Amino acid sequence: MEDRSLIMVPGPTNVPDRVMRTMMKPMIDHRGSEFKTLYRGLVENLKYLFQTEGDVFLLTASGTGGAECAISNVVSPGDKVVIPVFGLFSERVKENIVRRGGEVVELSLDWGAAPKAEQIRQVVEREGNVKALAVVYNETSTGVTVRDLEEIGRIARDNGVLFVVDAVSILGGDHLPVDEWNVHVCVTASQKCLACPPGLALISVSEKAWETIENTPKPFYYDLVQMKRFSEKNETPFTPAIPLVFALDEALKMVKEEGLEKRFERHRICAEAFYSAIDALDLAPLPRIEDRSHTVMAFRKPPNVDNAAVRRIMKERYKVVIAGGAGKLRDEIFRIGCMGMISEAEVIQTVSALEGALMETGFQTRAGDGIEAARRRFSSEF
Amino acid sequence: MEDRSLIMVPGPTNVPDRVMRTMMKPMIDHRGSEFKTLYRGLVENLKYLFQTEGDVFLLTASGTGGAECAISNVVSPGDKVVIPVFGLFSERVKENIVRRGGEVVELSLDWGAAPKAEQIRQVVEREGNVKALAVVYNETSTGVTVRDLEEIGRIARDNGVLFVVDAVSILGGDHLPVDEWNVHVCVTASQKCLACPPGLALISVSEKAWETIENTPKPFYYDLVQMKRFSEKNETPFTPAIPLVFALDEALKMVKEEGLEKRFERHRICAEAFYSAIDALDLAPLPRIEDRSHTVMAFRKPPNVDNAAVRRIMKERYKVVIAGGAGKLRDEIFRIGCMGMISEAEVIQTVSALEGALMETGFQTRAGDGIEAARRRFSSEF
Repeated sequence: MEDRSLIMVPGPTNVPDRVMRTMMKPMIDHRGSEFKTLYRGLVENLKYLFQTEGDVFLLTASGTGGAECAISNVVSPGDKVVIPVFGLFSERVKENIVRRGGEVVELSLDWGAAPKAEQIRQVVEREGNVKALAVVYNETSTGVTVRDLEEIGRIARDNGVLFVVDAVSILGGDHLPVDEWNVHVCVTASQKCLACPPGLALISVSEKAWETIENTPKPFYYDLVQMKRFSEKNETPFTPAIPLVFALDEALKMVKEEGLEKRFERHRICAEAFYSAIDALDLAPLPRIEDRSHTVMAFRKPPNVDNAAVRRIMKERYKVVIAGGAGKLRDEIFRIGCMGMISEAEVIQTVSALEGALMETGFQTRAGDGIEAARRRFSSEF
Repeated sequence: MEDRSLIMVPGPTNVPDRVMRTMMKPMIDHRGSEFKTLYRGLVENLKYLFQTEGDVFLLTASGTGGAECAISNVVSPGDKVVIPVFGLFSERVKENIVRRGGEVVELSLDWGAAPKAEQIRQVVEREGNVKALAVVYNETSTGVTVRDLEEIGRIARDNGVLFVVDAVSILGGDHLPVDEWNVHVCVTASQKCLACPPGLALISVSEKAWETIENTPKPFYYDLVQMKRFSEKNETPFTPAIPLVFALDEALKMVKEEGLEKRFERHRICAEAFYSAIDALDLAPLPRIEDRSHTVMAFRKPPNVDNAAVRRIMKERYKVVIAGGAGKLRDEIFRIGCMGMISEAEVIQTVSALEGALMETGFQTRAGDGIEAARRRFSSEF
């Protein structure tokens, strides 16, 4: 039997059959009329997703490539950029800034903490002459969401600083009205909350960012000015990953059919059910309660339990794949992706697999406590 | 009825159903064991494709992204790089070098011409202190193949110059034994002669290139040193376009089953059939006979015929899609991709559509002359 597992890592996620099937469409010429029609619809739905009247682009690259594209278009050598670092992915964005020759002003926090608006305000005002502020909205490595993002956007606006947001593991799963929150450049990726296969990065650019972008030296492949020029004729500068563009088109249609608000609510309820189960199992989430992500759950491995063994049992016995930690937390935590095609069924299947595997590796708990807690969260909705 | 056209542009190409179907495989975790197994097999088959004992990598990006990756890993600001420019894609590689801060030494040729070994030798020896030599092996915009590539590789070796080859629209369709021809970094893309969908760039790196690569500042997403580190554990640094990796795996298996020599021969025969038809129709190929590509045919539009109209009729009436020119030759030439899944059937279908559309737009020819000439070329094989 084909080994179809439930993929509950923080991306890539499970992809609906409806989206998968679109990848079987016959190949088309990316300079032809079918592509232009496809592109036009995509742009409209991307604007809905980002809640923006600005420009939107797609780039054949992973989310990290997308984040590097954003930084490369905004940061010139010598530019001062403020970045809170609180996990692996904010480390990566910092690395992007360093490689562009930017002057990094790092707000360094513990992994598991979230930067607060007040901290950002102090750094920005103390520094002065800040070109950009880059924030990872959802730190995939620690399950932390920056709940102050809207307020941080106001700080950027009040200080005349460009606001770049890496929303890779959250856009489509939680609130981020790009225009309303004053985000100038926002990046996400196809394989997270959009429930699409990996391979495409998506980028929004606000009107205010263009002047800077036009004056920033940048790699050819990342050139947003060129992307804008091609976008005006409903094309991409270079051959895009066509099957993934078909898939993204369908995935965005599903986002629109459901509606953003309903989708965010569904993610929130599933996240709360996961956290209820984690509590009931006496496991400790890494972030404080107010910083907890609705799209990535990160919680500590109990002592005397082998991280890899738990995940191996979950996969082999229960066909559920979750992740360990990333970077320096590799063995210390588990991470669950709560993204895209997530509902009570996936939550319960994952919690029961986790319970079973924990017990099998010597963890003491009463069978069913986690499942019961998760289930209660769903019942209370109806 | 679904509009399935024969895609005869110079990439993307038609993709075999066998390859398409693999994209429907359930999503997997790119940090899990299935991916590692898949990756291990891919690497082996990529080494076969590139004919190298060196390292091979895959990058989620278009071919242009792959070419920029190659340049970014080899060229440091101030480095002198020799590049023959003879079409749009060699212009692009030049642009990559400029954006990296390299000092471009351009050998500028007419579009339609091919750089010769002797010209390259003169430039390299005259300049001295050349860090790298970058050559587009097959200029997709003009249908020109650099037939002196092996000799140019010797010039690079004799002068201690790194040899970077953009083989995007040719690898898998014509000879390029990377190690034997002294190519240090070679790039191709999934959607050309491999008959795979677009979205992946493939890169080979020879042992000799590593010292330079390690000492070159480079963008994070393009960092080959990091790719090598991850490759050692059969992973990519960032989430790859998983469905395309499945597809590439299958496409490479098909390359191996057929065998490189047979595959090159098949491309050559189909190309000769196309050129026979082009001759019979009194159309003029852009390149001289000795420079003609086996993977991209470029030939002049007859006077008094509308380029776009011919292509529209071919598509609408005969369901065959070919390309016009690129860049400054946009309206002057037609281009046909002869790549991947190419055989007598596709050649004949394309030639007959071209004949029909040309006649319909007022071009004087005897119906069937092109088809007859192409068919003769195939008959002479058997």
